[in-house]
Amino acid sequence: MAVDVKKLRGMLGRIADIRSALALLEWDQETYMPPKGGDARASQIATVSAIAHREFTNPELGDLLNELQQQGSLDPDDDFLLAETLYDYERARKLPEPFVEELAQTQSRAFQAWLKARAESAWPVFQPHLEKIVELLQLKANLLGYEGSPYNALIEDFERGMTAEKLGAIFNELGGRQSNLVKEIADTGRRPDLVWLNQRWHEQAQWDFTMLVLADLGFDLEAGRQDKSPHPFTTTIDIADVRITTRIDPRDPFKVISSSIHEFGHALYEMNFQQKDRRTPLANAPSLGLHESQSRGWENLIGRSLPFWKHYTPLLQQHFPGHLNQITPEQVYRVVNLVEPSLIRVDADECTYNLHIIMRFEIEQALIEGKMKVADIPEAWNEKMKRYLCVDVPDDARGCLQDVHWAHAAMGYFPSYALGNLYASQIFEIVQRDIPNLWEAVEEADFEPLRDWLREHIHKHGRRKTATQFVRDISGKQPSSEPYLKYLETKYSKLYGL
Amino acid sequence: MAVDVKKLRGMLGRIADIRSALALLEWDQETYMPPKGGDARASQIATVSAIAHREFTNPELGDLLNELQQQGSLDPDDDFLLAETLYDYERARKLPEPFVEELAQTQSRAFQAWLKARAESAWPVFQPHLEKIVELLQLKANLLGYEGSPYNALIEDFERGMTAEKLGAIFNELGGRQSNLVKEIADTGRRPDLVWLNQRWHEQAQWDFTMLVLADLGFDLEAGRQDKSPHPFTTTIDIADVRITTRIDPRDPFKVISSSIHEFGHALYEMNFQQKDRRTPLANAPSLGLHESQSRGWENLIGRSLPFWKHYTPLLQQHFPGHLNQITPEQVYRVVNLVEPSLIRVDADECTYNLHIIMRFEIEQALIEGKMKVADIPEAWNEKMKRYLCVDVPDDARGCLQDVHWAHAAMGYFPSYALGNLYASQIFEIVQRDIPNLWEAVEEADFEPLRDWLREHIHKHGRRKTATQFVRDISGKQPSSEPYLKYLETKYSKLYGL
Repeated sequence: MAVDVKKLRGMLGRIADIRSALALLEWDQETYMPPKGGDARASQIATVSAIAHREFTNPELGDLLNELQQQGSLDPDDDFLLAETLYDYERARKLPEPFVEELAQTQSRAFQAWLKARAESAWPVFQPHLEKIVELLQLKANLLGYEGSPYNALIEDFERGMTAEKLGAIFNELGGRQSNLVKEIADTGRRPDLVWLNQRWHEQAQWDFTMLVLADLGFDLEAGRQDKSPHPFTTTIDIADVRITTRIDPRDPFKVISSSIHEFGHALYEMNFQQKDRRTPLANAPSLGLHESQSRGWENLIGRSLPFWKHYTPLLQQHFPGHLNQITPEQVYRVVNLVEPSLIRVDADECTYNLHIIMRFEIEQALIEGKMKVADIPEAWNEKMKRYLCVDVPDDARGCLQDVHWAHAAMGYFPSYALGNLYASQIFEIVQRDIPNLWEAVEEADFEPLRDWLREHIHKHGRRKTATQFVRDISGKQPSSEPYLKYLETKYSKLYGL
Repeated sequence: MAVDVKKLRGMLGRIADIRSALALLEWDQETYMPPKGGDARASQIATVSAIAHREFTNPELGDLLNELQQQGSLDPDDDFLLAETLYDYERARKLPEPFVEELAQTQSRAFQAWLKARAESAWPVFQPHLEKIVELLQLKANLLGYEGSPYNALIEDFERGMTAEKLGAIFNELGGRQSNLVKEIADTGRRPDLVWLNQRWHEQAQWDFTMLVLADLGFDLEAGRQDKSPHPFTTTIDIADVRITTRIDPRDPFKVISSSIHEFGHALYEMNFQQKDRRTPLANAPSLGLHESQSRGWENLIGRSLPFWKHYTPLLQQHFPGHLNQITPEQVYRVVNLVEPSLIRVDADECTYNLHIIMRFEIEQALIEGKMKVADIPEAWNEKMKRYLCVDVPDDARGCLQDVHWAHAAMGYFPSYALGNLYASQIFEIVQRDIPNLWEAVEEADFEPLRDWLREHIHKHGRRKTATQFVRDISGKQPSSEPYLKYLETKYSKLYGL
């Protein structure tokens, strides 16, 4: 008797439910969980991870996938679903359940330790947890298999088909040209007026301003929320329940704005998956790099543009009465595009950002290849910050403890941010061609044309193409670093009169 | 080879983790979930419920329990654990997994419908969901088996060993004497001064006041939280992560206070389970009636006492500057103990409260026994409100749609509140004997002696005794309605000069 794809969808739906429960446990851990709940949360996450893994690697699912494949003659949606599920299934089968459970438990404890370590700038609090994580990730690479560097096995989770070798070549070019640009800018000796930033920015007003921007951008608050967390992130409980978090700095109102816009970019992608793909692997981006092209694209190409600030500067003035009466949109534009090598990746400007990524990439690769010890991270970090960014790291909280990713056992993730920058610029060249009045619309806070374009060309397709295929189909060219470098060089030459 | 109780604890721990995930899905559904997330949430809850049920009814667990039982010679803790787990296991085995999944899904959808129905006072929005629930509960009663009324099978979930017949007898006496008391009070024509209540009470100040009271009572905010929800409740994610919710009424600051104290009573119970019982069935109360004895006890015996308000009236004055300058603790005491038949159960005074319970009990029994149709609830409700409380119900939102319990498929739950009142009074007679300076301590907001007493005599024992055994061991007598009626008659005779 012919097997039915409905049965597959039923099984996948139940697995999606379990993953949603897991996503909620993780979201709650970073937003509302009381601190003493952390211990039990580690067990809860480990147990539910193991169950999700067990259900997904159930041989019954494998048999069904094989039968469906042999049966053939599926409609195109079912065909994609089958192919993508098989890819995931075969990969997941390589990881035994106890390994998945141990990794989840280790991650969750590492996250608790990282919170404490970062708050106290106490690297030794985090080090043993990270040692365990690196050990488990090396094991994971062996279980998954790889060619070349074992780091490739981890990169595959975030950017299918990408390798450390390819990234090395891309980063080599990016690093060189971006360093030159930063040097040229430094040599001008020009700096925007920053004196007016030196005040205390009311936290509630900052929050309210982000909520206003999110509403304008089109974030559906009936199908999502914004909360606060130590490290901003987006999580999807369902395509109708997508949550972002943000972080407020009372000394700088622009950080929370970029952070909220960045996470909005992720959230919009998730909210735009199609109803018919709901609770299946197709309701996913094909790669994290493409996901970051959306978040980094909204954050930088839109949120750091002059038309954007022509609209929002008067509104900012209303939110902070008396704080910036004399400030023009052009002044805000200069401030949000200040180029200055600095300590914190998430606050880095566009010219230095990828340099933060490159050093993390180098450290991760060395760790996974066994060429660097976890204990040596702080020293390596500080040395690289000095070399690439000419910055002295005052403490580990603002150094190697700043990012949550390693606590989440997410190594191979950072390169996605740089790829996201590249993809975004290459895609936006076409967006600007397709929407000739894009910048007029942005100046009126009308983001609908852009949202529609992104939904039609990218979001709604889910995982039906790879990131490379999307970029190629949209731009007619292979992904390349040229559009990003051109964008940077044009924008900043003008800003700094190079 | 001898089997090990450690293996049992491992299995139970994993089941506890899954139930924690479920508790979080439910907590989030009532606090932070965006409205459009409700549909997917119903599936998520159904799937995770089914998994929890499947893991718990796994024959492997049954075999292990049997082997351990045959093996004998366990230490007393293990002995209790084994007996209580077996009781739960055998009961759970009677319910097939598809039934559990369907009930969970129905409940979750019913909850969404109830929110809408209550907001719009639209009974027809809720009715079909409740019809489905009643049908499933009748089926559940048949699956579980019962003697006498099928309603007994449901009562057993909340109060082991209790029956509709026994409750009928208790409620008969309570109903009669409480009705008489209410009549006598009405006949005096006396009413406390309520004019000063007629103002708008700032919502943030109300919230802040409850947080102050919770801190004094001993609610550990490192191991719990308070949030807002349409219907206040307590949920336990772990004994170190116990969450309560509350509801603010801008027209009355005393509602939120009672509500927070009530849920604190539940939370303290859960927080006081022993570390060694964590993630096992022993970290539970033996019955909901005993649980309610804690919540109703803290809410009423403490939170509506004169010593309590001697301490808190000045603090209330500070929180609402200018609102109650001339008000004395005695005036507040009279207001929080105003006896007046009214529409809403959770706001009912101690004299009328059980009358609300009795009518719900009668409706539930008739529904489960098939003697009343769901469609006839509004009429029956309004008729009973008139008969027992002489109150006209203006709309269903303030009538049969006011409680969340039926949407949660919790029939047989309401009687626990009345039993809680009885148990609380019987226990508090002994508390007052054992802690001679209890009321002086309360007047100084020193709740430690009471907390310690409750932990030692009740909380820490978890499910090691039944509710009846607890009450009997503490008071030396069988549970009875006499202490509660005596408490009511003494307190209110004095208050109303009967």
